[in-house]
Amino acid sequence: MHRLIDGYKRFRDGNWPERRQLMQTLAVEGQSPTALVVACADSRVDPTMIFDAAPGELFVVRNVANLVPPFAPDAAYHGTSAALEFGIRVLQIPELVVLGHANCGGIKALMHGAPDAASDFVGPWISIAAPVRKAVLECYEPQDWQTRAEQETVRLSVRNLMTFPWIAERVENRSLHIRGAHFGIYTGVLTLLGEDGSFAPA
Amino acid sequence: MHRLIDGYKRFRDGNWPERRQLMQTLAVEGQSPTALVVACADSRVDPTMIFDAAPGELFVVRNVANLVPPFAPDAAYHGTSAALEFGIRVLQIPELVVLGHANCGGIKALMHGAPDAASDFVGPWISIAAPVRKAVLECYEPQDWQTRAEQETVRLSVRNLMTFPWIAERVENRSLHIRGAHFGIYTGVLTLLGEDGSFAPA
Amino acid sequence: MHRLIDGYKRFRDGNWPERRQLMQTLAVEGQSPTALVVACADSRVDPTMIFDAAPGELFVVRNVANLVPPFAPDAAYHGTSAALEFGIRVLQIPELVVLGHANCGGIKALMHGAPDAASDFVGPWISIAAPVRKAVLECYEPQDWQTRAEQETVRLSVRNLMTFPWIAERVENRSLHIRGAHFGIYTGVLTLLGEDGSFAPA
Amino acid sequence: MHRLIDGYKRFRDGNWPERRQLMQTLAVEGQSPTALVVACADSRVDPTMIFDAAPGELFVVRNVANLVPPFAPDAAYHGTSAALEFGIRVLQIPELVVLGHANCGGIKALMHGAPDAASDFVGPWISIAAPVRKAVLECYEPQDWQTRAEQETVRLSVRNLMTFPWIAERVENRSLHIRGAHFGIYTGVLTLLGEDGSFAPA
Repeated sequence: MHRLIDGYKRFRDGNWPERRQLMQTLAVEGQSPTALVVACADSRVDPTMIFDAAPGELFVVRNVANLVPPFAPDAAYHGTSAALEFGIRVLQIPELVVLGHANCGGIKALMHGAPDAASDFVGPWISIAAPVRKAVLECYEPQDWQTRAEQETVRLSVRNLMTFPWIAERVENRSLHIRGAHFGIYTGVLTLLGEDGSFAPA
Repeated sequence: MHRLIDGYKRFRDGNWPERRQLMQTLAVEGQSPTALVVACADSRVDPTMIFDAAPGELFVVRNVANLVPPFAPDAAYHGTSAALEFGIRVLQIPELVVLGHANCGGIKALMHGAPDAASDFVGPWISIAAPVRKAVLECYEPQDWQTRAEQETVRLSVRNLMTFPWIAERVENRSLHIRGAHFGIYTGVLTLLGEDGSFAPA
Repeated sequence: MHRLIDGYKRFRDGNWPERRQLMQTLAVEGQSPTALVVACADSRVDPTMIFDAAPGELFVVRNVANLVPPFAPDAAYHGTSAALEFGIRVLQIPELVVLGHANCGGIKALMHGAPDAASDFVGPWISIAAPVRKAVLECYEPQDWQTRAEQETVRLSVRNLMTFPWIAERVENRSLHIRGAHFGIYTGVLTLLGEDGSFAPA
Repeated sequence: MHRLIDGYKRFRDGNWPERRQLMQTLAVEGQSPTALVVACADSRVDPTMIFDAAPGELFVVRNVANLVPPFAPDAAYHGTSAALEFGIRVLQIPELVVLGHANCGGIKALMHGAPDAASDFVGPWISIAAPVRKAVLECYEPQDWQTRAEQETVRLSVRNLMTFPWIAERVENRSLHIRGAHFGIYTGVLTLLGEDGSFAPA
């Protein structure tokens, strides 16, 4: 923990003094985020860095492969759906971004099978994107599977978002906008999913 | 999206040039994070800021109220458990932090009921912490419920982590260390859950 | 050689009788090919198969990575340029296709360095595409380098073709048309380089 | 391009379904060709047809007059030598065939001079076989020059192959076999260069 605590001390001595006033306001007035971001847990893809966001701006859900499951309001524990509900229905966040990324280990597991060491949960979780796997295997060269599956998974998550009635309703009355995006770790380039279904640099 | 894209452009022009070499190395060599952090989706609690972490250091799961459900390897979609499995079993991350925080909306919903507008998923999700609610209601003054429930929820998540056999095993053979923590948005102070069960400043 | 000779015997017994009349006409009247194809030596990318071409239709140059060097009429042995000259100036072929493909080992060597075992010629030869390497390294994620470099190399070869004055002249007076193409070995899909610079299915 | 695209569509509808499984295996496992063939770009001499070869079997270099230049590892672009190096040193192909043919326009240019329209590259390229021209002019009737020069050029290419140290070494330790061959476009007959230096039907 030394490294983490050292980091916290740097934050206290360095970043905190200039953040203090903003943080105190946010504590007192509550958060009112600009955007809800569904991102991957991957350590190299920090939405705050990519969008140069200040505290209070981004409500962030992070799971393996930035997946949104389809709407299924049963008694099970739906962590991602709960975060969507909190962000959209309670906080009424007006923008929602699904942020995929290059080198995604979850997508690699989707295409090539979860590692033996990750069969309890990664396999079932990633099966949300099973339709992506099938489509990509059929349509693309193996050397393109990773990027195509990452992109298709963003599209799938965007489609699944629309199965949530309180999301679809807001999109229709234009109080919520959804964008798919993909971040290149190596290039640092963000591409956005356009209306024509393709990804283009922001 | 203008605000997000403006932020991305600031990142590209400002932060990217100095990050570039690190990011390219991380892209080519893969991630090898120092710690897995289970944090809240709250826009004011960015683990990267709090631990002043560089890209590649923190594998981050964010859900409502930084909850870890108990081990339940069934066919359902367990996003948080999948991320734990990926981080611990595949990436073999040696540190795991459950990061609670002050002003947590999920904990408020736990104690006072989910808003009507958030009954599909937030209610069932937060019920993971139902034992916390019961204990806090019994033991503490109402004015202390929020903080106590936030802290008790961190403890619950830490206990639930130990129901995962491949986590318990690693903790026992000392290849994995788990810490509970709690961040004060207003004070900027991080407290750590000690072996005696109390939280103390880092 | 048994396998090759067995193949030849199958050809004689099977394919030859139906090809005989066409071949005899082609022997007597000479060839008048529909298209000149610059393709890779790769055993999986046979232009005759891909374009279902009959004998006499395709004049085929095959080298590593379907490269066209820039115009350099010196005393050196320029095998590819000589074939271009023979096809375009002598045979006056009206169509020219540069056919790239997925899984190209030459392109892999371009991006990752020629194998130690191939330093005498593959390295210098592939250096024709050095500008492609530089551009792709700068602009794309590592997982996309192979496909992007294959596509960029087709573009480079097309550009280099235009440095040959007797090619540029024919393109300008519309007696020669040039197309870039890329074949997916796994998918069997042929994409064509369009006027907008992108590749789209034929 | 209509004719080429029509041909591609016939391939997709006709040949692809039965080739699909083989091609996908070749894409995933890589190529492992049976033979490297140095052939002419001539549209009437398709090595795949002559050897009734399946995709993946033949690694094919095609230039004007199936010439192999002597070993000259300088900085120039040696397309044929690069393909030899890739096939022999990287892919370790165990058979190498130099495939000459009747009615060869390159050989005609060798014996009678390159057409005026082909002086930039065809002349210098074909000068690789200048010793053949001299010997044939001295030893044979004009009516035999064409065939004799085609055959002598195959012999020359085979001799030049042996100037590549990594080819000579493999031939000596019997991990590589080289054969010269000549194909009659009109007769459809393949003749092979024997140990006694003459060509005889396969």
